[in-house]
Amino acid sequence: MFESAELGHRIDKKTFDAEVPALREALLQAQFDLKAQGDFPLLILINGIEGAGKGETVKLLHEWMDPRHIQVTSFEHPSDEEQARPAAWRYWRQLPAKGQIGVFFGNWYSQMLQGRVAGTLDEAGFEHALDEAVALEQMLCNEGALVLKFWFHLSQQRMNARLEELEDDPQHSWRISPLDWHQSRIYEDFVRHGQRMVQRSNCQRAPWHVVEGFDHYYRSLTVGRILLASLQDALKARRKDRRDVGGTARVGNGLDQRRLLDSLDLSQRLDKAGYQQQLLTEQARLSRLMRDPKMKRHALVAVFEGNDAAGKGSAIRRVADALDPRQYRMVPIGAPSDEELAHPYLWRFWRHVPPHGRFTIFDRSWYGRVLVERVEGFAAPVDWQRAYGEINAFEEQLTEAGTILVKFWLAIDRDTQYERFKAREKTPFKRFKITDEDWRNREKWDDYVEAVDDMVTRTSTRDAPWTLVEANDKRYARIKVLRTLNEALERAFGQDG
Amino acid sequence: MFESAELGHRIDKKTFDAEVPALREALLQAQFDLKAQGDFPLLILINGIEGAGKGETVKLLHEWMDPRHIQVTSFEHPSDEEQARPAAWRYWRQLPAKGQIGVFFGNWYSQMLQGRVAGTLDEAGFEHALDEAVALEQMLCNEGALVLKFWFHLSQQRMNARLEELEDDPQHSWRISPLDWHQSRIYEDFVRHGQRMVQRSNCQRAPWHVVEGFDHYYRSLTVGRILLASLQDALKARRKDRRDVGGTARVGNGLDQRRLLDSLDLSQRLDKAGYQQQLLTEQARLSRLMRDPKMKRHALVAVFEGNDAAGKGSAIRRVADALDPRQYRMVPIGAPSDEELAHPYLWRFWRHVPPHGRFTIFDRSWYGRVLVERVEGFAAPVDWQRAYGEINAFEEQLTEAGTILVKFWLAIDRDTQYERFKAREKTPFKRFKITDEDWRNREKWDDYVEAVDDMVTRTSTRDAPWTLVEANDKRYARIKVLRTLNEALERAFGQDG
Repeated sequence: MFESAELGHRIDKKTFDAEVPALREALLQAQFDLKAQGDFPLLILINGIEGAGKGETVKLLHEWMDPRHIQVTSFEHPSDEEQARPAAWRYWRQLPAKGQIGVFFGNWYSQMLQGRVAGTLDEAGFEHALDEAVALEQMLCNEGALVLKFWFHLSQQRMNARLEELEDDPQHSWRISPLDWHQSRIYEDFVRHGQRMVQRSNCQRAPWHVVEGFDHYYRSLTVGRILLASLQDALKARRKDRRDVGGTARVGNGLDQRRLLDSLDLSQRLDKAGYQQQLLTEQARLSRLMRDPKMKRHALVAVFEGNDAAGKGSAIRRVADALDPRQYRMVPIGAPSDEELAHPYLWRFWRHVPPHGRFTIFDRSWYGRVLVERVEGFAAPVDWQRAYGEINAFEEQLTEAGTILVKFWLAIDRDTQYERFKAREKTPFKRFKITDEDWRNREKWDDYVEAVDDMVTRTSTRDAPWTLVEANDKRYARIKVLRTLNEALERAFGQDG
Repeated sequence: MFESAELGHRIDKKTFDAEVPALREALLQAQFDLKAQGDFPLLILINGIEGAGKGETVKLLHEWMDPRHIQVTSFEHPSDEEQARPAAWRYWRQLPAKGQIGVFFGNWYSQMLQGRVAGTLDEAGFEHALDEAVALEQMLCNEGALVLKFWFHLSQQRMNARLEELEDDPQHSWRISPLDWHQSRIYEDFVRHGQRMVQRSNCQRAPWHVVEGFDHYYRSLTVGRILLASLQDALKARRKDRRDVGGTARVGNGLDQRRLLDSLDLSQRLDKAGYQQQLLTEQARLSRLMRDPKMKRHALVAVFEGNDAAGKGSAIRRVADALDPRQYRMVPIGAPSDEELAHPYLWRFWRHVPPHGRFTIFDRSWYGRVLVERVEGFAAPVDWQRAYGEINAFEEQLTEAGTILVKFWLAIDRDTQYERFKAREKTPFKRFKITDEDWRNREKWDDYVEAVDDMVTRTSTRDAPWTLVEANDKRYARIKVLRTLNEALERAFGQDG
């Protein structure tokens, strides 16, 4: 598949000089439109053979376009903050915002390919990394991003000639790669695995472009034309398709209308004495577990979702009470900021992913996409339906990095909610907790029941299961929450051996 | 000064229980107002003697108020990303946004005090750290923040009793501090230096509150009352004073109306041949310097300010052309995001402070405060006037951490600007660079001359001098920019020995 990029493509300087001014103007105009339209980012991934002009191309883009809105990031050795989190965190940190251009020079492909060639990644690991890359790009495209992937190529002979030529040039020292390109095995392995990588991750919305890097004029003009055409197409498409919101929204969970939530026995209760005693026991257990040396290899994430007035806040408080305030971080999810809106949906949650040894409590979470956003129509069906898969992929990355993930749905019945709303209105320091919106949400009770049913069915996985908490009795709910957290920690520590 | 906090203050449970419900309600209400009003943050600094109830107090605040809008941060061992930047970067990263409460548990005071007691910080270093703390808090208060500083105290005897009591309690392991509190010298030194610290950094807008930590009821009620009163006062004051914008705005630079910018010889030129040759020389020099191993101990920051159409962009491009795109980062300063608006003015620049080994280019900068914001009236005189001192303090922190800071003002005359505006309107791919706003700014030429004069006079320091660049001739300007950067790097490396 790289053969046609080993032919020694070239064009002459005259052709190049004749075409560049118009190309440059058009690129600048397209970049300006991208920024003005502001509804999607452009992400460019730079990969390929050493010496094939990757760095020069990045510099050329800076030269031809407005460099202030192009952010080049190279991902070299991860910092300790990055090492303590899932591998993808560093990429999420640097994703370009809508209207911006991000160039990832050194990215998931170079990581997996270097690892495969160096032997630190085996076949299964390589396949898995490929799957994750495809899923990530799929998500980015679904969020509207334009993703362009370049593979700069050279035949082995031309690469060797090029490396010799560059060796003495001080301005080019940054081409150094961790691989020893002078070994012919390295080139061969790189190309072999690289071909498979390109084949497996090529798709219509995030296509690979293989460009021969031998001749500067040919390479530059090719990249410029591809970039321009892709950007212009995307700008046109985005203007036209202000998303088609129609379509069928039902997920469907059997025809008998039996719901998961109906199966809960909400009458379960704990008396005060039993509660007090169990509370102390479970809090001491949590405190002890969080200080276990094994926690250094894990992080803990707890997600709290539930009906309004189900007691999320008071359950969270009982968890927090057991802990050193320095060990945990509370993240309440409300309206997104404009920086958050300018990024893919999950970006605002990736921001708060805890490092090893720490605990993040999400008071509402990424599940808002398939709950409130679905029910209220803030997200189009096509968007909340794909969210299940995206969320599963996100959570898999968390748990693979050692994060223990515990998800709670606190369930109460309608009558209990009514009583609590009324009580809140009467208690002075709880008044701020009850708003007109809460009463409005209550009207949509059945829609939420259906949404919760779909959510649990589609996102309760072996490593990230949902725990439904019967919360009509607050004491019962709090103990169940604490115990579930403790059991999850013990299970994970037990598996560490 | 801590004597009154060694008396063994206590109150009985009955008084406590009687007062807490109303206090709690009022605190919740105040917190709600803080969030709703959304125009200032509350920052609480927790310091004092080991075992005096610091952690319990933080937990109590979580219990009494809405924990979702209280962010507790402890600053323990800095991460490698933090170590590669000025010491204050980690605090700026975690500053609470407007409407939020931030608790810094472990903060600049605990750092300096532990350092002083452990002997890693000498007297001069301690004094310097104190000065920086005072300047930082002054700035925060000027930006509207409410800063409350607590010193929790215990007599040595009571501390010893308390430490013994806590030793066996597994839930309290997080009290561990790097100092060995069982040594009586440690207590004495801590108190002695702590007293001086509290005295020197006490001020009306960020006062210290010394609270005896012996009795839980006394301590908790005292903190709760102080917090409530301070928050209520601040809420009332902020509502009233929607800043008094009047007052005298002139800085004044001599009566003779002679301006720094008038002293420039804008007729300086470079012919094309000389330019080409010097460009190559200076770019190669910059490339070499940036790859010097000494760069690992430094970062480079370049600030580009100048008249509209003075050629900032093209000068920046000549700098970038010499470099590996991975070494530098371009930060164009436009309208702030809402997250940036919710923080003190300098926060958005602290975000982009480079780590050692890297180079950040600011295309416009923090000087906007004393240029466009002053001239256009976006900042009140009291705010842009204090900005000079804040900026100097900021830059001092950068240079102390090894950052090489180079600041350019690119100057052209009015006629040259007119010609360039006209030319831009005619060149298709430069059209986007000229807007109505540029023409409007041009009307205020004299105001800018005055603002630049004041800016340079007040912020050109030994370690962060301004370089005025005669930019009527773009070639001359580009070479001067490159040469100035190179000389700054060489000077810094030379001082490293």
